[in-house]
Amino acid sequence: MTNKVEQQSPHHVVIVGGGFGGLHAALSLGDAPVKVTLIDKRNFHLFQPLLYQVATGGLSPAEISSPLRSILNKQQNTTVLMGEVQDVDPHQQKIFLNKGEINYDTLIVATGVSHHYFGNEQWAPTAPGLKTVEDALEMRRRIFMAFEAAEKEHDVEKRRAWLTFVIVGGGPTGVELAGAISELAYSTLKRDFRNINTAETRIVLVEGMDRVLPPYSPDLSAKAEESLVKLGVEVQTKALVTNIEDNIVTVRQGEEIQKIEARTVLWAAGVKASVMGTILAGHTGAELDRVGRVMVEQDLSIKGYPQIFVLGDLANFTKPDGKPLAGVAPVATQEGKYVADLIVKRLEGKTSPAFEYDDVGSLSVIGRHSAVADFGKVKMSGFFAWLIWVFVHIYYLIEFDNKLVVFIQWTWSYFTRKRGARLITGDESLGQIGVDEKGDYFISPKIKVSAKV
Amino acid sequence: MTNKVEQQSPHHVVIVGGGFGGLHAALSLGDAPVKVTLIDKRNFHLFQPLLYQVATGGLSPAEISSPLRSILNKQQNTTVLMGEVQDVDPHQQKIFLNKGEINYDTLIVATGVSHHYFGNEQWAPTAPGLKTVEDALEMRRRIFMAFEAAEKEHDVEKRRAWLTFVIVGGGPTGVELAGAISELAYSTLKRDFRNINTAETRIVLVEGMDRVLPPYSPDLSAKAEESLVKLGVEVQTKALVTNIEDNIVTVRQGEEIQKIEARTVLWAAGVKASVMGTILAGHTGAELDRVGRVMVEQDLSIKGYPQIFVLGDLANFTKPDGKPLAGVAPVATQEGKYVADLIVKRLEGKTSPAFEYDDVGSLSVIGRHSAVADFGKVKMSGFFAWLIWVFVHIYYLIEFDNKLVVFIQWTWSYFTRKRGARLITGDESLGQIGVDEKGDYFISPKIKVSAKV
Repeated sequence: MTNKVEQQSPHHVVIVGGGFGGLHAALSLGDAPVKVTLIDKRNFHLFQPLLYQVATGGLSPAEISSPLRSILNKQQNTTVLMGEVQDVDPHQQKIFLNKGEINYDTLIVATGVSHHYFGNEQWAPTAPGLKTVEDALEMRRRIFMAFEAAEKEHDVEKRRAWLTFVIVGGGPTGVELAGAISELAYSTLKRDFRNINTAETRIVLVEGMDRVLPPYSPDLSAKAEESLVKLGVEVQTKALVTNIEDNIVTVRQGEEIQKIEARTVLWAAGVKASVMGTILAGHTGAELDRVGRVMVEQDLSIKGYPQIFVLGDLANFTKPDGKPLAGVAPVATQEGKYVADLIVKRLEGKTSPAFEYDDVGSLSVIGRHSAVADFGKVKMSGFFAWLIWVFVHIYYLIEFDNKLVVFIQWTWSYFTRKRGARLITGDESLGQIGVDEKGDYFISPKIKVSAKV
Repeated sequence: MTNKVEQQSPHHVVIVGGGFGGLHAALSLGDAPVKVTLIDKRNFHLFQPLLYQVATGGLSPAEISSPLRSILNKQQNTTVLMGEVQDVDPHQQKIFLNKGEINYDTLIVATGVSHHYFGNEQWAPTAPGLKTVEDALEMRRRIFMAFEAAEKEHDVEKRRAWLTFVIVGGGPTGVELAGAISELAYSTLKRDFRNINTAETRIVLVEGMDRVLPPYSPDLSAKAEESLVKLGVEVQTKALVTNIEDNIVTVRQGEEIQKIEARTVLWAAGVKASVMGTILAGHTGAELDRVGRVMVEQDLSIKGYPQIFVLGDLANFTKPDGKPLAGVAPVATQEGKYVADLIVKRLEGKTSPAFEYDDVGSLSVIGRHSAVADFGKVKMSGFFAWLIWVFVHIYYLIEFDNKLVVFIQWTWSYFTRKRGARLITGDESLGQIGVDEKGDYFISPKIKVSAKV
């Protein structure tokens, strides 16, 4: 009898979040004797490492997104649900949606992080960040709109402000954005304007630490900075943004205070865990780190709650050396696969060893020809690293959704230096250059951004 | 002296609108001894005949758009300006932007039409139309969201309403939308859901005239209807929508009143000229037709204003047989080329014959395998007409911007029946399925649409 009931209701794994971690957990459970429900706010998986390409007009959102339903439609044991989890009851083993609740036997939470302004939330409308497709389209709108406004502006000072781009944060996203904007300004758009010379564009990358790409070794950081300077990017390290107001970015470098007049400010400086971290902590007493990530056990579960796992960017998995794993796609992917495997083993009465990250190396791209790669013993930079970067990214894109078309698009763009996805979209008011009371041009900031404010 | 001044200030042609008409006028003036300024609200040319593909997740906006600047950047005599014309002074030969004014020697106005609800503007939030990229993304959001909501809904009646799509208007746009939604529901999405059977989707096409595709011959209309019925579309002709309220579409067919419960209503029923028509009429006394299009002379100029031309969808050019030319891309394109040629001839002191449209035929697509084509003497329908449709559209896309990638994407989609651009985007509130006071699911309508209300 008991056996029969068990057959009718297989072990139910509920996965919240369809990013790299959640999706790979679901995929790895495809043949397992469990029922899987994957819940995501959006109906698509986003290949976030290429989001900066959308922000700079190189790719369209659909080219780096795949419908979750179509990725998982062959898995008969898997249901995809579009919805937002409002709360969790770890004692009754339930999650709550805006309507209805779902019981779980095992819960996997992988809702990631959002960008964050750390006490300077008033900067959000002026300095958009880059986490969602909407964020990327907003950046794209501002970048291309700035060139349009510069073309219209006759005053030299004001025009210079439109042609000044400040990127806050010298991590991978900041470096990618700076490189792509340099490509745009100094190459793609060169012949497109009549009143401005886009080669006069000023691109400033501001980083608080003493070097760009701080997670990399100092020599790779130096190579990256060299590549950026070659691309025409002004790199300011040990530099803190202390204010963003009235189109002026105030930067403090030691004792020196600098005021940069810039109409476009892009935020690539910090992230904060999604709200699921706080919800979980509230109910389970789990510890959070300073950006709100959940401190997890060596098997990625929450202490005292072996049936709840947290993974990907939302988890702080501290390695034996005391350092947390980075918030990158390969970590989330491996974590997702690990937890899927652990669940299957557990159902078979077996135990799993602690999670161990198999370091596949780090890659960061800088413009059209250059990248840095750190494969542990082997470190490289320049064109060859860039080639590896391209092939790794294409490989992963094709793995999910046969996005061969992106590869063709890229090859084409590489040789023609074109960027096809340059259209400025948004509501009618967002798509226009306005004139304020003083008679100056302005573009309406889109207030709603994905940042946690 | 006079001669010198003339050399310094060549004849200035100002073109308002970068659609097929305006863009082809600009392109044809590339080598002419004139200065050209092309003004458009948007920074891209939109290949509108494929907009329904964006609305149904088949293509991304960038794949049917080309930046106006990059199309025209080789023409040294041409300036592109992003802006909206607020007013015209035909006596001083000036146009006014939100800041500044521009003098013209010749003015070409080609600002097109928008969709329109003819006195039922309250239907706009419920029944979006299809003219801009934003409109298409809004339709896409609603279509895919409806399936998501149906998957969540347990009540049979309510679920049926989510799976009912009413398309108002049986012209080319309505037929294209109905065919594409049928493809989605009965093929692409078939395996993607667990709680609903997308094959139960009901697609109703409502047309006021006695047949679909009224501009075509009755036998082609009959073939089109046959194809639609084969695709599972319910075609209702001589049927008028009399109300759209509380998710119920009221349709009157003769004496019979029908109430269709549908959560998705798409508007493909009528257009109205853009506001430039009214502005021009106000200053020049030009006559407007009942949808606000400017009645033009046989050389496309405004009566009494030989230096102002109106073309494309905004113009009503009445053929010697008393019928106006249709608002389609080939007409606008030929008109643009004609006016460019006329301007050059006029500068040389020559005159031009009246504009004559060289009828290249009409093509309308119905789903994945079928189309109707009318080439005057030769009329065809079915698969062969569809092949012609595909190649004609690919040819024009490639002509502008080498969008070979679209061709590859299409070939791929045709064989895999996939639709890659299915992502639901929009602001956070627009991207979610809400729950109202009664506990029913709803999706927030995006209020701002491009329609003239």
